[in-house]
Amino acid sequence: MAQDPDVSEYLIAPDPSAVRLTRAVQGVDHNGEETTIRVVEERPLTIFLNAQEIVTAMTIGDYPEYLALGFLRNQRMLLPDDDITGVDYDEELETVVVRTARATDYEDKMRRKTRTSGCAVGTVFGDMMEGLGEVKLAPTPVRTSWLYDLSGKINRTPSLYLEAGAIHGTVLCEGNRPLVYMEDVGRHNAVDKIAGWMLSEGVSAESKILYTTGRLTSEMVIKTAMMGIPVLASRSGFTAWGVEIAQQIGLTLIGRMKGKRFVCLSGEERLIRDANPAQIADEPKRSGRKGEA
Amino acid sequence: MAQDPDVSEYLIAPDPSAVRLTRAVQGVDHNGEETTIRVVEERPLTIFLNAQEIVTAMTIGDYPEYLALGFLRNQRMLLPDDDITGVDYDEELETVVVRTARATDYEDKMRRKTRTSGCAVGTVFGDMMEGLGEVKLAPTPVRTSWLYDLSGKINRTPSLYLEAGAIHGTVLCEGNRPLVYMEDVGRHNAVDKIAGWMLSEGVSAESKILYTTGRLTSEMVIKTAMMGIPVLASRSGFTAWGVEIAQQIGLTLIGRMKGKRFVCLSGEERLIRDANPAQIADEPKRSGRKGEA
Repeated sequence: MAQDPDVSEYLIAPDPSAVRLTRAVQGVDHNGEETTIRVVEERPLTIFLNAQEIVTAMTIGDYPEYLALGFLRNQRMLLPDDDITGVDYDEELETVVVRTARATDYEDKMRRKTRTSGCAVGTVFGDMMEGLGEVKLAPTPVRTSWLYDLSGKINRTPSLYLEAGAIHGTVLCEGNRPLVYMEDVGRHNAVDKIAGWMLSEGVSAESKILYTTGRLTSEMVIKTAMMGIPVLASRSGFTAWGVEIAQQIGLTLIGRMKGKRFVCLSGEERLIRDANPAQIADEPKRSGRKGEA
Repeated sequence: MAQDPDVSEYLIAPDPSAVRLTRAVQGVDHNGEETTIRVVEERPLTIFLNAQEIVTAMTIGDYPEYLALGFLRNQRMLLPDDDITGVDYDEELETVVVRTARATDYEDKMRRKTRTSGCAVGTVFGDMMEGLGEVKLAPTPVRTSWLYDLSGKINRTPSLYLEAGAIHGTVLCEGNRPLVYMEDVGRHNAVDKIAGWMLSEGVSAESKILYTTGRLTSEMVIKTAMMGIPVLASRSGFTAWGVEIAQQIGLTLIGRMKGKRFVCLSGEERLIRDANPAQIADEPKRSGRKGEA
């Protein structure tokens, strides 16, 4: 690759060479010839909160502690005032145990969940809207030059996506700098790993931008807002309700960001249009990147 | 469109002109110009099994009865010997109530679910593998000419995807004929709607092919197998574990199917290579279709 960006900008960048994250799979192609393809792994990871088993998620397997912390936080099973005393990953058992100083209210939470969600449906409403009314997002200005810089850097960053495909990426950014780039088989896992990192490191959300390769659905907009992040950008499309919620809660929403193109669906008044789109190159046809429609 | 395929081949085809399924959303583009974009709707649909509220799913909103039936069946809350006495959709309340002659075992099911799944994680393990050992798939032969025919027909079928994007499509096929084409914001919803249609119509699975626009993850492979469908094809990529499970249970798995290209990951011995790939046209650059990586 001639134009590798400076990966040292990242605090965490993908590690596409990590042996544990991909596997060579044999297949037979359209010409009847044997072919070997590197594909991403999926592994079960069972998350415990103290003595309670909470969920078994399918994940590529990196950053299990961040995934567990972020999942529990984003599900509001861990609350901001919970004192986390330990996060123990057991590679052999494929478990992470998150421990808190006092018992959390997860038992009530779980009891209520049996009524509001049936699981494995992918998109669940129930709890999702809860607490959204209290969200106050910082009215963070966004320079369009940052958006173009971020998009270019992220697309050129060596990643599992470019190596093996069939994976979602989410990047926490600040200004024009990508900070933490997480990938996973499910786009929620990638976001949860970022939430877990932010929680572990005590990172504030208010000046951040979240970039995702996935679609801007209501669920993704709500999750970003609940994490306190005021700006969400994607190269993919969006749903009507995702846009409506973003407008209601004052989240800046940018979709279909490819080459010079983007559409601002919410927060136009917070955009600073300091870049001239005519000077931005279109993406090369073979960039390897696709939007998720 | 010059080459519309014969949509009359379908028993159910997408209806991209349906007013209820899309909405015009206003945005501001990269040049600062106002733009109007048709995007898909997301609506909550709350599914009841008798008196029990089970889940609220986010859906585009078509075929709510099939979605409810297929969801409950695929979650094994409805069992094959349950006698379904009614399926009542209330558009105003956004609910579907599925009624059975006798109480089902869903209460036990739900109690157990509280231990194995936390919801909204997108990919849940728990129940997923349960019952997979008993699955016996018919060793259905697959002609490569069917695969090429199906891929061409499906890509040219007018759809919400082509109209508005940000949506997944799944098509139930037999031989070279696409039968039922469902779309939804979540790919599981699209598959569940097909399962609900099959259950309602008493359609057998053994000679069918399931085509999806989405990735071939373990979850998708397992779901297809549990529905009894012996062949799963996609224009997108796959995960290592998806391939492994397909091989174990004898499901024919075809990935990265675009133009003349495809890769057979499982069931090569059941493929009849009756088409000459050299005679298949590559997809036009602007086909509008993208794989999900």
